[in-house]
Amino acid sequence: MMNYPLLIKTILNRSYNLFPQKEIFSRCLDKDFRYTYGDFYARVCKLANVLRSLGIKQGDRVGTFAWNTHRHLELYYAITCSGDVLHTLNIRLFADHLTHIINHAEDKIIFIDEDLIPQIEEIADKLTTVEKYVILTDREELPETTLSPVFHYEKLLQDAPAFFDFPELDENQPAAMAYTSATTGLPKGVVYTQRSIYLHALTLCLPDAIGISERDIILPAVQMFHVFSWGLPFAAAFMGSNLVLPGRRLNPESLCSLIEQEKVTLIPGVPTIWINILQHLESGARYDLSSLRYLCNGGAALSKKLVESFDKKYDVKILATYGMTEASPVVLTCPLKSYMDEWEEDKKYAWKAKQGRLLPGLEARIVNEKGEDVSRNGKEMGELLLKGPWVASEYYNDPEKSAESFKDGWYHTNDIVTIDEEGYILVQDRSKDLIKSGGEWISSVDLENNIMAHPAVVEAAVIAIPDEKWQERPMACVVLKQSEQNKVSAEDIINFLKDKVSKWWLPESVVFIEQVPKTSVGKFNKKVLREQFAEGKTPA
Amino acid sequence: MMNYPLLIKTILNRSYNLFPQKEIFSRCLDKDFRYTYGDFYARVCKLANVLRSLGIKQGDRVGTFAWNTHRHLELYYAITCSGDVLHTLNIRLFADHLTHIINHAEDKIIFIDEDLIPQIEEIADKLTTVEKYVILTDREELPETTLSPVFHYEKLLQDAPAFFDFPELDENQPAAMAYTSATTGLPKGVVYTQRSIYLHALTLCLPDAIGISERDIILPAVQMFHVFSWGLPFAAAFMGSNLVLPGRRLNPESLCSLIEQEKVTLIPGVPTIWINILQHLESGARYDLSSLRYLCNGGAALSKKLVESFDKKYDVKILATYGMTEASPVVLTCPLKSYMDEWEEDKKYAWKAKQGRLLPGLEARIVNEKGEDVSRNGKEMGELLLKGPWVASEYYNDPEKSAESFKDGWYHTNDIVTIDEEGYILVQDRSKDLIKSGGEWISSVDLENNIMAHPAVVEAAVIAIPDEKWQERPMACVVLKQSEQNKVSAEDIINFLKDKVSKWWLPESVVFIEQVPKTSVGKFNKKVLREQFAEGKTPA
Repeated sequence: MMNYPLLIKTILNRSYNLFPQKEIFSRCLDKDFRYTYGDFYARVCKLANVLRSLGIKQGDRVGTFAWNTHRHLELYYAITCSGDVLHTLNIRLFADHLTHIINHAEDKIIFIDEDLIPQIEEIADKLTTVEKYVILTDREELPETTLSPVFHYEKLLQDAPAFFDFPELDENQPAAMAYTSATTGLPKGVVYTQRSIYLHALTLCLPDAIGISERDIILPAVQMFHVFSWGLPFAAAFMGSNLVLPGRRLNPESLCSLIEQEKVTLIPGVPTIWINILQHLESGARYDLSSLRYLCNGGAALSKKLVESFDKKYDVKILATYGMTEASPVVLTCPLKSYMDEWEEDKKYAWKAKQGRLLPGLEARIVNEKGEDVSRNGKEMGELLLKGPWVASEYYNDPEKSAESFKDGWYHTNDIVTIDEEGYILVQDRSKDLIKSGGEWISSVDLENNIMAHPAVVEAAVIAIPDEKWQERPMACVVLKQSEQNKVSAEDIINFLKDKVSKWWLPESVVFIEQVPKTSVGKFNKKVLREQFAEGKTPA
Repeated sequence: MMNYPLLIKTILNRSYNLFPQKEIFSRCLDKDFRYTYGDFYARVCKLANVLRSLGIKQGDRVGTFAWNTHRHLELYYAITCSGDVLHTLNIRLFADHLTHIINHAEDKIIFIDEDLIPQIEEIADKLTTVEKYVILTDREELPETTLSPVFHYEKLLQDAPAFFDFPELDENQPAAMAYTSATTGLPKGVVYTQRSIYLHALTLCLPDAIGISERDIILPAVQMFHVFSWGLPFAAAFMGSNLVLPGRRLNPESLCSLIEQEKVTLIPGVPTIWINILQHLESGARYDLSSLRYLCNGGAALSKKLVESFDKKYDVKILATYGMTEASPVVLTCPLKSYMDEWEEDKKYAWKAKQGRLLPGLEARIVNEKGEDVSRNGKEMGELLLKGPWVASEYYNDPEKSAESFKDGWYHTNDIVTIDEEGYILVQDRSKDLIKSGGEWISSVDLENNIMAHPAVVEAAVIAIPDEKWQERPMACVVLKQSEQNKVSAEDIINFLKDKVSKWWLPESVVFIEQVPKTSVGKFNKKVLREQFAEGKTPA
């Protein structure tokens, strides 16, 4: 067989050769924009020429600090296909962390969306490797900025040739980087290769993964700086799906209008997005959402209630997925098997709210504290270990943290999960969030899902509080619906749980809070809650 | 990223881990058999142990001479996953060619279906490398045979351990071989790697390729010795699809009954199969075929009439594909693009009868005699050149023939094609079948399709006959329906073509024949016709 490498330029070329008429819609700061994969290809070539003229050499890291727009998409392809390394910077990071990852990755240039300039200006004098800044804007002139030297994206492109001969690369060459938004310590970097991005994108498109075809119209409601919108911008161009890039507005009105207007079939996002959309619909807003095949959930667990509500009230299906920065990110997706069609409704909803089953190509183990594989009974908990062509083997230039997570050829996810007889995995906890009570494990996530099934509850986070007798005991931090404030008591919540979990799982205490603190990627930040409540303190 | 190889054992393990309850049905010589991927895995492990106990070492070639049954499927996986090389022998080859490929590949063992023993007995004394024979049979005792030493498959398995530790292999290691059934000269060998089989199988499953999911029930009506039933037994196990293996009976009654009984969703096969099924249905036979998503065509071109007849009369869809031994085999598949839904019916049928568009991952050029890329106008003809991770780079141990077909990094298919503005490719001819008339090219395939659109015609083959003035002119060899014999004249055929092709394309002569001679894989054997008619002779 030919020695033919798996490269991202194969994806780009296919979108150009086979789908030049298919469309990319982009919501920019000042206006909406629409063009085709044909136009897109010409601008990617121009941009690749611009990168060269700005002095970027193969292997150099190029940072992006941007929303979900067509310019960001152009950067994805121009940077990776010309052999440079795309480094998507998380715009929600604290200044110190942002400074750290830019310096640690040694970014040479940063491409910045106009309205995000102040965040970079704030740290610019601490950036040790950045030589140039380029501003992404619709306006004719650059906004005033202290960044220097600074360039105008559109003007650079205007003058560049519309042809670029993308090089033959080694498939194991780095193509992109992302840093995990750690809740403790500094972010850790992951390097993706041409091969890993190609195989991940291809596998996502399988009917039983996410199932992506030319007929899809994909709206990434997860940011392009969150592990490349989970790889969907690569999958979409590969298959010729239309893309709808929502810019910075991810509120329910904006998303629902876009779904209706663009006839979106697939929208990846996190539970917060769905909860907001559901509340918006329940408040009486009406849209035609009939084009949707799926809401594609990731980032955090789904509740069964959410899956069921969307299905029954609005005939909208949710497909669960699971992954992490270290795995490109997608590891699990949750389509039901054909023979599960016969199951009773309630059981099907319960299964659909699991994280799912392994994508083709990955290998997993689930091991208990003794290092033994747990039984496939949906009960025994263990840590999920992973192997595969799109799983990291180390953190970038960080031997110490690498040694903690990468052992014996396996990536140790730190996620505590169960696996059932059908091979579906349910995340019970992050290992640090697990509650160790009297030598047994209590899943905070399981408790949270049960509490969130209460009709008055919007969100709930369960944390461990120290306990002299049992070592740790669960505490529930609960957010009530606006209309239910002061109408539901801690006792009501406990009573609600009594027929749903073992008696010794019942929370030691229940506190009501305004909202669950979130990390920069929208996950529950239990560290903040632990700091607040760890001593058994009750809230102010 | 991890250095995680793409191996066939990943496919096998997935079928076992996630789909142990899904089924494989197998029609053997004496009885039907049904088991699960769970049972299958145990027998594959036993078989891998048997291969070791028979003295097979990694890299050794193991021949199979067998129909589409579960035992043949077990051989597929046990041989490849343990690092040996699966060599599927075409049971329709002439004795000399069969002898040649077994000796040329240096097969160490041959696994033989009981009723095929005589073919191997006939050549056994000419086989220079085969050390052992194993008979696949349902019977308790071995049939009488002159082959020696000879073993009983089931008895070998019975005593073998049901666990095997499949080795870590290099993904570029050979996994399988097949020989092309050349119409001239000796067959040429192609070696497939672990990686090429993995990537080909994965890509086939994409929604816009063939679209294979756990929900599918696949009946390979193309032989497992024809480029591994086009890779579908690998794709099926990877995704957890049920398999229905039809044994040796590919007649319309048997296939239609199996479709109805097993609720088959997908059946890959060649046009002859569909033509036979269509005639069977038109003769009044009734089956429930509503489970079918597609007839999946390959091996030879579809006529628009066939696509339209199945759709309109029986609501059965046909998906065209195209490939060759040198490309694992699938290169093109022919789903329509979303916006083609708006096209008028006739145009859609015409597009569905094309060979299709490139699978993701492959690269193509279509070049004219000057080596220039042809225009994408559906008219200009050129030779199709291919590159990709599942395209061969040479013929096995055959530098001379390799040099003819593999040049400048491209595989030269010898197929003369056009490509239209949508990127769909239509095969016009094998380059040797092309008719060169007055410096212009006439596509024999295009003429054949037009003739086959005549309601009285079953099949038609067009060949070049020497012509003093024009160099070559087309002759049509036409097979009429039984009921239309002697009712249709050569002039009728010519008149029928007049508004369909250019005047200078009209055949110089039309002869009526009993049937079109076929090669061992069921393709038109025009060499035989040319030998018969080349001198302008008329048939006896």
